[in-house]
Amino acid sequence: MNLNRFQLENLSPPAELLNAVIQQITSHASVRSYRPDPLPPGALEVLVTAAQSASTSSNLQTYSIIAIEDAERRRLFAELTRNAHVADAPLFLVFCPDLHRLEVVCQRQGHPFADRYMDMFLQAVVDAALAAQNAAIAAESMGLGICMIGGIRNNVPKVAEVLRLPPRTFALVGMTVGYPATPPKIRHRLPLDVILHREVYSDDNLEEGLRRYDEVTAQSGIYAGRQVAVPSGATQATGASDAGAKGRAQGAPGEGGRQRQDPALYGWCEHSARRMARLNPDRAKLRQQLEMLGWEF
Amino acid sequence: MNLNRFQLENLSPPAELLNAVIQQITSHASVRSYRPDPLPPGALEVLVTAAQSASTSSNLQTYSIIAIEDAERRRLFAELTRNAHVADAPLFLVFCPDLHRLEVVCQRQGHPFADRYMDMFLQAVVDAALAAQNAAIAAESMGLGICMIGGIRNNVPKVAEVLRLPPRTFALVGMTVGYPATPPKIRHRLPLDVILHREVYSDDNLEEGLRRYDEVTAQSGIYAGRQVAVPSGATQATGASDAGAKGRAQGAPGEGGRQRQDPALYGWCEHSARRMARLNPDRAKLRQQLEMLGWEF
Repeated sequence: MNLNRFQLENLSPPAELLNAVIQQITSHASVRSYRPDPLPPGALEVLVTAAQSASTSSNLQTYSIIAIEDAERRRLFAELTRNAHVADAPLFLVFCPDLHRLEVVCQRQGHPFADRYMDMFLQAVVDAALAAQNAAIAAESMGLGICMIGGIRNNVPKVAEVLRLPPRTFALVGMTVGYPATPPKIRHRLPLDVILHREVYSDDNLEEGLRRYDEVTAQSGIYAGRQVAVPSGATQATGASDAGAKGRAQGAPGEGGRQRQDPALYGWCEHSARRMARLNPDRAKLRQQLEMLGWEF
Repeated sequence: MNLNRFQLENLSPPAELLNAVIQQITSHASVRSYRPDPLPPGALEVLVTAAQSASTSSNLQTYSIIAIEDAERRRLFAELTRNAHVADAPLFLVFCPDLHRLEVVCQRQGHPFADRYMDMFLQAVVDAALAAQNAAIAAESMGLGICMIGGIRNNVPKVAEVLRLPPRTFALVGMTVGYPATPPKIRHRLPLDVILHREVYSDDNLEEGLRRYDEVTAQSGIYAGRQVAVPSGATQATGASDAGAKGRAQGAPGEGGRQRQDPALYGWCEHSARRMARLNPDRAKLRQQLEMLGWEF
């Protein structure tokens, strides 16, 4: 077993809790370069059975999985998602929230399809995501590598056309699956006490956690050659003070939290803030695109 | 290891693919009755580290996890979610999509928080769901049981108040965690060829799959005493014919698919159609509730 997250982050949990499943889960690293070798026979069905074993709201199973193995189509999805490795991995899975199936079932049973609200959209998205994560862990347990591809949402109408999606479905996330060409590197995450809150949400650990994570990520070199350019208008007060106002009203960090960091330190905070300072033009119309696919909010 | 999904559904995958991780994943069954026994020391941190090991879009980690162990608060959440076992399980986890943290980071770095579109909402929801599924598998690997609680969305404003959630966060899904009081039963799922599509989405296997699943679920007895009443207006043509029009236009099953089933057969189709024929009044205002919590679509 490669390095796992406990080792990477110098955590020392009780040894008796570190079973093979947890070792597997905490060894995840996204794989972006693949060998052309095909998957073992029957592997796809095992991955989908693992996906189907995830919890699903009211057992409605409001998702579909589309397996793309055709090389020509994988090249097309590599372009559409702007992820070259989609063309290299032998299998590309697309996880689709799916209310079309229930609509057919309502029609089949002679009942109206009445529950058309954002919560059903959320249920379908969560069903699809839980299934995707099970498939990811199952694949990694077979020695395969995976990478979740949010870029499948870069061109929602075109992807719906290529996948021949019926109304009330859409491609939420893709997943490349195949044998890693090179061993992937586990990424550091935010300190546990930034993600985990006790009884109530709290920002008490946030500033110290961000400071630590900035140091770790800056030192790790993951941003070498990947720095996001400072967006135009990044220094304008609007966004920041707007956020500040909301933050102050709702328990954001104190004065310390509002001090500008040393620009010499380009870590997760500066990288992520620059990322959020610009809207992703490919995604800005997502709601309208989903409404055109029959989704209701 | 208890029965797993391969055995339940009489599937016979290549034996060499059935490793311990896949056995674990395919043995999932939701647990709704718990022993009061506390979790092992350090288990919560292991579950959260497993959750943090899931893929997260652009490493933005747009989620938070709130651990509720206080008995009084668990009783409150049992009421709010209408799941009595939330009071019995020693741990209740709440998974929250979280853009508040990034807003604080933008403010901290002096950049505007510009990417405020539905895609960021989706990224945060998917991040939270992937983390939740990792925590679920990790918990089950320790011999604990879990149940995902969508009922946490029954009263979004009240839950946000009780958890002291800042703007741009919300409680997406809860999870009870504890030792099962009774061994849970794995539920049958839709046939694999209904969920899995090859290269393009297709309804070709749908009607036959629904027929098989209806028989299996009707025979399984899971709906005994749980039948959904026929909703008023269920026979009105509007919903059904509306769905039919969409269905016909978009490749729903043929005539066979539109024949009313024998009402004597109350299986997944009739149960799910009756469920979808009535809107869930607790959830109908979700979009407006989320907008009040600062979410933008």
